[in-house]
Amino acid sequence: MISALLSIGDELVLGQKRDEHGPWLADRLAAHGAPPIEQRVIGDDRGGIAAAVTDLARRADLLVITGGLGPTADDLTRQALAEALGEDLVIDDEAMRHLHELFQRHDRPMPVGNEVQAMRPQNMRCLENPLGTAPGLTGRLGRCVIFALPGPPNEMHRMYHRVVEPAVIETTGAEAVIRTQVNAFGFGESDAAQKLGDLMDRTRDVLVGTTVSGSVLTARIRATGPPDRQQAAVNQVADEVERCWGPYVFGRDQVDLSQAVGTMLLEHSCRVATAESCTGGWLGKRLVDVAGSSAYYVGGWVCYTNALKVAQLGVSEELLNRCGAVSVPVAAAMAEGARARCDADLALSITGIAGPDGGGPDKPVGTVFIGLAGAQAPTQVRHFQFVGDRAAIRDRSVKSALQMLRFHLLDAQVRLLWQRGDAEAVPSS
Amino acid sequence: MISALLSIGDELVLGQKRDEHGPWLADRLAAHGAPPIEQRVIGDDRGGIAAAVTDLARRADLLVITGGLGPTADDLTRQALAEALGEDLVIDDEAMRHLHELFQRHDRPMPVGNEVQAMRPQNMRCLENPLGTAPGLTGRLGRCVIFALPGPPNEMHRMYHRVVEPAVIETTGAEAVIRTQVNAFGFGESDAAQKLGDLMDRTRDVLVGTTVSGSVLTARIRATGPPDRQQAAVNQVADEVERCWGPYVFGRDQVDLSQAVGTMLLEHSCRVATAESCTGGWLGKRLVDVAGSSAYYVGGWVCYTNALKVAQLGVSEELLNRCGAVSVPVAAAMAEGARARCDADLALSITGIAGPDGGGPDKPVGTVFIGLAGAQAPTQVRHFQFVGDRAAIRDRSVKSALQMLRFHLLDAQVRLLWQRGDAEAVPSS
Repeated sequence: MISALLSIGDELVLGQKRDEHGPWLADRLAAHGAPPIEQRVIGDDRGGIAAAVTDLARRADLLVITGGLGPTADDLTRQALAEALGEDLVIDDEAMRHLHELFQRHDRPMPVGNEVQAMRPQNMRCLENPLGTAPGLTGRLGRCVIFALPGPPNEMHRMYHRVVEPAVIETTGAEAVIRTQVNAFGFGESDAAQKLGDLMDRTRDVLVGTTVSGSVLTARIRATGPPDRQQAAVNQVADEVERCWGPYVFGRDQVDLSQAVGTMLLEHSCRVATAESCTGGWLGKRLVDVAGSSAYYVGGWVCYTNALKVAQLGVSEELLNRCGAVSVPVAAAMAEGARARCDADLALSITGIAGPDGGGPDKPVGTVFIGLAGAQAPTQVRHFQFVGDRAAIRDRSVKSALQMLRFHLLDAQVRLLWQRGDAEAVPSS
Repeated sequence: MISALLSIGDELVLGQKRDEHGPWLADRLAAHGAPPIEQRVIGDDRGGIAAAVTDLARRADLLVITGGLGPTADDLTRQALAEALGEDLVIDDEAMRHLHELFQRHDRPMPVGNEVQAMRPQNMRCLENPLGTAPGLTGRLGRCVIFALPGPPNEMHRMYHRVVEPAVIETTGAEAVIRTQVNAFGFGESDAAQKLGDLMDRTRDVLVGTTVSGSVLTARIRATGPPDRQQAAVNQVADEVERCWGPYVFGRDQVDLSQAVGTMLLEHSCRVATAESCTGGWLGKRLVDVAGSSAYYVGGWVCYTNALKVAQLGVSEELLNRCGAVSVPVAAAMAEGARARCDADLALSITGIAGPDGGGPDKPVGTVFIGLAGAQAPTQVRHFQFVGDRAAIRDRSVKSALQMLRFHLLDAQVRLLWQRGDAEAVPSS
């Protein structure tokens, strides 16, 4: 069963307000075996709505329209449906009675404008709306079943759950779409696809697609069919994706990188500290985003000036003068200094040039060194050359630091995207 | 000039991810005299994309497509454009050179999959993308000008501002809608409207509306007409809004609170340090978001544990035991400790209970104390009772701290939203 979604309103199409209904309905319809081929947003224009209804009804088995059922002059969904169906608008006696009752109950005279809300195209049916004045409408255009729902979210949601979803489930039967996602960080999108090989083949039963958002790679895995059979198939493919992507995978579904790191730190009974320069506290902020992070995050330093690096973390002035604040030895000294000044087992440091100014021929904007100091191993420093603007460079620095921490706990010896050369082991100073 | 928007991606059409690009572009194009007739979201299907392009190009003067330009098998915008235009895909030498350079610069071999990103339909032109591997594309289908932009937001926004917007303005001539916005923080939305009085009257030439996003209040001011006349009217109303909202106003248009604070710190030649607990470095991160912040931000401490508050900031153990870490005296001691340990003129501290756990009858979740220490005045501490979840409580803490700093520099004696009682002046310990 193929669905299509049509949201109506000038404020939506002009970008003054975001269409929340399209994504909300899409997610639910996809889960019940009626994935949308299209979400369309158009303005309050009768001819335009009628044309869109005709077009979408030709291509989908189910069309869900939201908005444009109110009592004002710019509510035109009802009239447009009549036009698309080639039918007249007639008064629905039941709906008219309900409208009058509603106004009587609130002791208000019914404005003349509201009467139009009791009208429907001749062969459509009104859907009761106990939460508002606008009844919904349902009917057919060719083989396509049409539902028109009111725009206010509570009214729309109720009508969807009471009327649309049961109708969809009745048609699709037990069919449902089973979905999961695998999230990873630290390699590029084209590598991601290459590693997955024919798992991404568009003809397979279980479909895999990849997306990147905030440098996080996500494999979106889905299959349509009986849930009892497909759930296992989807899980198996998710496992295969995890094998292909290896230690870069940090979690499934809604898990984010700092949550994944937090869970691992808890499992290892490991406490961590931070020493940041160009990220300005963002790494600490990310760790503290997770509720309960006080169990594994001690705290940290934001040493934005060299003076603070010296005074607070014990980085030697000689080192700063000789190598510069953005260097392997300073990153190592920052991490070691942080670890020595608190009871953390591990300390992460970040020092770099986030731009837009401050870059040079040797150390262009995007040059970042990330250090990791622990009790046993020598301090590890990785050199990165990030691309992007100031915000992207800093965001990628924070995520790379978190992933370095994961790799350390996993004992995984792998490179990260944007990393230059191998990790350097710096003997403790 | 009529525009249309097409966003591409299975994750979008299936409702797994919201289409942010459609509304973003719609708002801008409408402001520049090219209002969209439609925002359409479809999946990664070559035939479907080609059909949508053909349909939309027939009805609009400008079509802006986002997404589907990546290197993987489900990125099909390029191929679909070739199909819609009835042209072959050819290699663009310039784009191929840029791609190779990009991978060389990052010392990585170029995956074979990426080569397709240097291809374009014969009569289209590649648009340079310095932030990523996917060049954009532009060309014509009949009378419609088409732009295809990459999906990652920073790449898309840059290309829109550099290429699409100038092209639109050249065609539509002067901007049709004059707009500005006034941004404020620290009071509620109903207060905001009350303070504006009849400025919000819907029958005025210059329209004023208010919105709240991330607790920041924005008055959106707009007028339609000849720019030379309307610009002055809009500016005058913006000035009136500023007068009504007073010191809570921190800037116009895209200026955010940390930028506004940064500008003021520069003007006052004032350097600031931070001492954070529940915000975990977020305040430092916000200050460092602004390029050039090293001129006024020294750095800070994230003292998530009491031990670090004692060892690093010199907060007395006795104080912590007697009053608790979340208290007026500890907030004061943290700010004073930070200021004493570096060469900052002012220091801000934040200590509080962000939840979901850790609250009690005396200090429920949302209790936050924010301190401000300087050379002259006694240390000031404000007590807040924030509402919202962990993220909202921390975000509001950071913004309240930044606004406290502004008020201090302005010498404004006003309360902030969620503040309990007046600011307390704590004699230096």
